[in-house]
Amino acid sequence: MAKPVLLFLLSLVVTSHATCPRDSNNVRNQENQIHLLRPITGAAGRNIPEIDCLSWRLAVETYNLRNWGMLPSSCEDYVGHYMLGKQYRKDCEAVADVAIEYAKSLKLSGNGKEIWVFDIDETTLSNLPYYARSDVQFGALPYNATRFDEWVATGDAPAVPAVLRLYKTVLALGIKPVFLSGTKEKLRQSRISNLNKAGYRKWEKLILKGQNEPHSSVEYKSNKRTELVEAGYIIVGNIGDQWSDLIGTNVGNRTFKVPDPMYFIS
Amino acid sequence: MAKPVLLFLLSLVVTSHATCPRDSNNVRNQENQIHLLRPITGAAGRNIPEIDCLSWRLAVETYNLRNWGMLPSSCEDYVGHYMLGKQYRKDCEAVADVAIEYAKSLKLSGNGKEIWVFDIDETTLSNLPYYARSDVQFGALPYNATRFDEWVATGDAPAVPAVLRLYKTVLALGIKPVFLSGTKEKLRQSRISNLNKAGYRKWEKLILKGQNEPHSSVEYKSNKRTELVEAGYIIVGNIGDQWSDLIGTNVGNRTFKVPDPMYFIS
Repeated sequence: MAKPVLLFLLSLVVTSHATCPRDSNNVRNQENQIHLLRPITGAAGRNIPEIDCLSWRLAVETYNLRNWGMLPSSCEDYVGHYMLGKQYRKDCEAVADVAIEYAKSLKLSGNGKEIWVFDIDETTLSNLPYYARSDVQFGALPYNATRFDEWVATGDAPAVPAVLRLYKTVLALGIKPVFLSGTKEKLRQSRISNLNKAGYRKWEKLILKGQNEPHSSVEYKSNKRTELVEAGYIIVGNIGDQWSDLIGTNVGNRTFKVPDPMYFIS
Repeated sequence: MAKPVLLFLLSLVVTSHATCPRDSNNVRNQENQIHLLRPITGAAGRNIPEIDCLSWRLAVETYNLRNWGMLPSSCEDYVGHYMLGKQYRKDCEAVADVAIEYAKSLKLSGNGKEIWVFDIDETTLSNLPYYARSDVQFGALPYNATRFDEWVATGDAPAVPAVLRLYKTVLALGIKPVFLSGTKEKLRQSRISNLNKAGYRKWEKLILKGQNEPHSSVEYKSNKRTELVEAGYIIVGNIGDQWSDLIGTNVGNRTFKVPDPMYFIS
């Protein structure tokens, strides 16, 4: 991992750690996570949570688990530690490595029609400073659209470093980035300034969600991708943190799933 | 995140030690795996493998990584420990939990046309006794079709316990199991006796691969599933360890991915 990225992420961990609401519970929860690796009934006869959070996360990431509302309560601290710790960053870097290798292998037509579709939240930009708040708790509390929109309006979301690296590679190769997001159209100015601030300064299109779009993200994003294809674009790559970014119609020649154990969008 | 993973890895090392064919390398590799959780350049200035094997496995399971030939050499021991340790079993149980919950939620027509498609190798039956051999090394040595077929001919593969549990639930619910495998047709008798011995004693169809089938597993399995649908069957569920079991045409109303970091079939 590049040193600046590491330092940036460390600073993210440090700054977010201060807002992590459950420090006092860390010791207890770490203990539970450790005991998950032993038989369900521990030596002291205590009840141990039955959900293995690594297995739960794998089920989420492989799309075995669908339409889950909120994270299992026994995995709340696990998810917080994962998102703020090194593994999430490494998992994202591994996705970027594969995507960059793929992008570099492409023989481009040179007609400027090849595009790469980027989802925004938890793909291009990270909402971790929001999700680490005590009134959000990494998705362990119910979703609050008003507060989330207020956060988006600040335009303060940092880049997901691995995806910024992919974006820069894609751009340098001559593939045009298209951002396709479920963000409401009225937040366009905040998103533009946020993207710029985070290091994303060029794009072919920034597609946000108008008032009359279908509620389903699969349907909305499929429609928008179909419009792109009908306009003559070739979607060579498509990256998102939700399976709803990557299924449906005209998904692209190759899709890439970034980890996200905090929420599910159908 | 670091602490539970560290302990998790240590527990795998301890539990798998006895059956792992590469005991002489364990100390070195154990050290490397632990150091993967620390910065790339360790305190002693040694070079640390750059691939994080947890991230690599996630990339495989999410289908971000495709057409990979063999496991990265730095993850050979990791994969062995994972497959023989508790995490693989827990990950399989988590898949079965979700699949069983889904199966029980179905409203069946009662006309006996609902089927559940099961892949065989590393889904229904486990080839771990073969893959743990010193001449196979969990897929770290090149695939040898002759030796693998000799192993299949023994009919000694145990059930994957979580999938046997799903099979029994599916059967009890009145959904008919269909086995769809890339195993060669000439091994039919071995497979039948193996399935029976492992606890799978009823099925609607056992589809094996004839000599004139397409080489591509996606194509072969898509064709066979299409034949099933054309014969009036409804594929309510489909489970496999390879993404090639779960993509293509007529994949079924819901698909489930069982972990397999040992090999890739396209």
